[in-house]
Amino acid sequence: MSVISLTTDFGDLYPASMKAVILGINPEVRIVDITHSIRQAGIREGAFALYSLVPYFSAKSVHVGVIDPGVGTSRRALAVKAGSKGEEQFFVGPDNGLLIPAARRLGEMEVYEITNKDLMLKSGVSATFHGRDIFAPVGARLSKGMPIDVVGNRISDFVDLDFGNFGVDGPFLVGEVVFSDGFGNVITNIPEDAVLKFCTFGSKVEVNGRKVSFVRTYGFVGQEEALALIGSHGFLEIAINKGNAALQFGLKSGDQVVIKVL
Amino acid sequence: MSVISLTTDFGDLYPASMKAVILGINPEVRIVDITHSIRQAGIREGAFALYSLVPYFSAKSVHVGVIDPGVGTSRRALAVKAGSKGEEQFFVGPDNGLLIPAARRLGEMEVYEITNKDLMLKSGVSATFHGRDIFAPVGARLSKGMPIDVVGNRISDFVDLDFGNFGVDGPFLVGEVVFSDGFGNVITNIPEDAVLKFCTFGSKVEVNGRKVSFVRTYGFVGQEEALALIGSHGFLEIAINKGNAALQFGLKSGDQVVIKVL
Amino acid sequence: MSVISLTTDFGDLYPASMKAVILGINPEVRIVDITHSIRQAGIREGAFALYSLVPYFSAKSVHVGVIDPGVGTSRRALAVKAGSKGEEQFFVGPDNGLLIPAARRLGEMEVYEITNKDLMLKSGVSATFHGRDIFAPVGARLSKGMPIDVVGNRISDFVDLDFGNFGVDGPFLVGEVVFSDGFGNVITNIPEDAVLKFCTFGSKVEVNGRKVSFVRTYGFVGQEEALALIGSHGFLEIAINKGNAALQFGLKSGDQVVIKVL
Repeated sequence: MSVISLTTDFGDLYPASMKAVILGINPEVRIVDITHSIRQAGIREGAFALYSLVPYFSAKSVHVGVIDPGVGTSRRALAVKAGSKGEEQFFVGPDNGLLIPAARRLGEMEVYEITNKDLMLKSGVSATFHGRDIFAPVGARLSKGMPIDVVGNRISDFVDLDFGNFGVDGPFLVGEVVFSDGFGNVITNIPEDAVLKFCTFGSKVEVNGRKVSFVRTYGFVGQEEALALIGSHGFLEIAINKGNAALQFGLKSGDQVVIKVL
Repeated sequence: MSVISLTTDFGDLYPASMKAVILGINPEVRIVDITHSIRQAGIREGAFALYSLVPYFSAKSVHVGVIDPGVGTSRRALAVKAGSKGEEQFFVGPDNGLLIPAARRLGEMEVYEITNKDLMLKSGVSATFHGRDIFAPVGARLSKGMPIDVVGNRISDFVDLDFGNFGVDGPFLVGEVVFSDGFGNVITNIPEDAVLKFCTFGSKVEVNGRKVSFVRTYGFVGQEEALALIGSHGFLEIAINKGNAALQFGLKSGDQVVIKVL
Repeated sequence: MSVISLTTDFGDLYPASMKAVILGINPEVRIVDITHSIRQAGIREGAFALYSLVPYFSAKSVHVGVIDPGVGTSRRALAVKAGSKGEEQFFVGPDNGLLIPAARRLGEMEVYEITNKDLMLKSGVSATFHGRDIFAPVGARLSKGMPIDVVGNRISDFVDLDFGNFGVDGPFLVGEVVFSDGFGNVITNIPEDAVLKFCTFGSKVEVNGRKVSFVRTYGFVGQEEALALIGSHGFLEIAINKGNAALQFGLKSGDQVVIKVL
């Protein structure tokens, strides 16, 4: 029994048709919604969502990601296999970078272009909804054990994406925002080990000029108080205990974050 | 292994009790949420949601629809079987038109009034939540193969609903809005074949007096630019590339749409 | 085949990692989202959501509740078994009262502190996300039949919670708001039997000084008209037919409600 995850910017209604198509092909598969609320065309945020979740899924899981502003144009459709032998997971979606950070996190990856029309929706492929017409049926077939090279040729010139640079610049640790979650917690691209070399739990730091405590968890500061912490995803996170840091710090995806130890 | 879909205006929380009841009766069934965000009492929008999704579901699927402003009053409860022999799908919900367009789309249909109290929730039927107390248990039993005539008598005087008239009026193609989705895309009741007889991809058209491009997909116009297209549901759709057409055109369900070729 | 329900204040994204962990341990289990939209840190509202839903779940169901403002501090983690022999359901979550009303509703209960680290996420327990790292894996193991005393010692000094007092005070029936749902319906802590001793369907009552009809269901009053009814959860509810009573009455969780028969 395998698992298919879905990560889209579709909001309501459209994910259901992907699920109907998937269950029509593989009635046994378990479907997990990662999110359908990515900002419209937010490829980078969607890539982070998938990247942050993928370590918790089992071998053989298939991740269908559809943040796809180029749907129906000449952008390619991809299927990816990633991870060490016997532990592989699969990814299906558009060739715009969305799938790459998550796949690369698992280790070695092979990227294929989906061109085999026999795998697509039998009633035809629309110009606007490849999630339903291409990615869902290909994902469902991969979840049933179809070899990935049935989809088409292996390629190496796929669109790449990473979460940008971070590093120490004199007295500053500099990175950028990759995601803000539904609580308004601001997640940066600075990983745990880089943060812990730079400052220790219990110290005071400045985040973009504002003084906050660097602590292990939300409950270690007072209500409405700002904090920095290592979030559950393993990255530096800026938060307000029972408040919205994205609003209060005015931070959104792509913005620079500058940390200084006080 | 069969599938039950759910289409409601319940928002949060209440769908879970329907799922608990369904899984108590048929632990094997797969549940797909079509939407729980239909505008409160939006029978017409709910009917369209179900109508647009039903072709993607497999034979034997059961669709439970509960947009039910008349719950607890004298309105009847229905179970419907529709589709050609061996390919039937089932529908359960209130007698207010909600289920009819989707059922009719599948072909021949038989409509039954649910009166058999043995099929309803054992702990009793509330006045306000037939979704949980009647429609969920009847749907779960149909998904296990219960013959539909166990629910009660076949009837023919059910409440009907269609998505209104459309047609060519001199130089105009006239229809109406049936749904606007979470992106603000405005979906009309004018089907693909009527549109393609009237205009060709690449032409300019006026939509309610505003000039837009009629193209195959969103990416064929610039950002924030308006377009008309055949949506993935097979109907004329008015959209803004990375924008909200419902807001910009001021269009909502039931409003008239007038198209003119330029 | 068993069921795990999830009740959190996580909103989007984070529930998916709990589901991935659960399916990694028990690929057969069925997952039902009760809600992920509880107000942040709304323990009382989450407790009511779980309490109101639990009677509809089957024996052996496992309910994972994570409204957990104290995550990563010294608050304990609990597993609870409740219900009569052979009909038990299980509960997993923080020791802050969240699980207790639902468990107690099922009858006898046994409360255990989760201390067995072998049951927790193998890749380590974060300071901020015990839903994924402790409660999900423990819940998944209980759903596979693990005896509850494997989690740790039985305790009796857990944090308790109830939905407050209600009662008759001279000519008034007095209670308080425990929840307002997505429609703006205001649910009180006054149970059906107390209400029906106090007033009869069809009578007029005052709710906090405002005259409303006490009727069986929404459709028995005009549109935009206020009503009191016994909600589908079995408690007195204040509603507006096709409107939002929480806004119009200015009532939120914890507010007092005073009913007078006219």
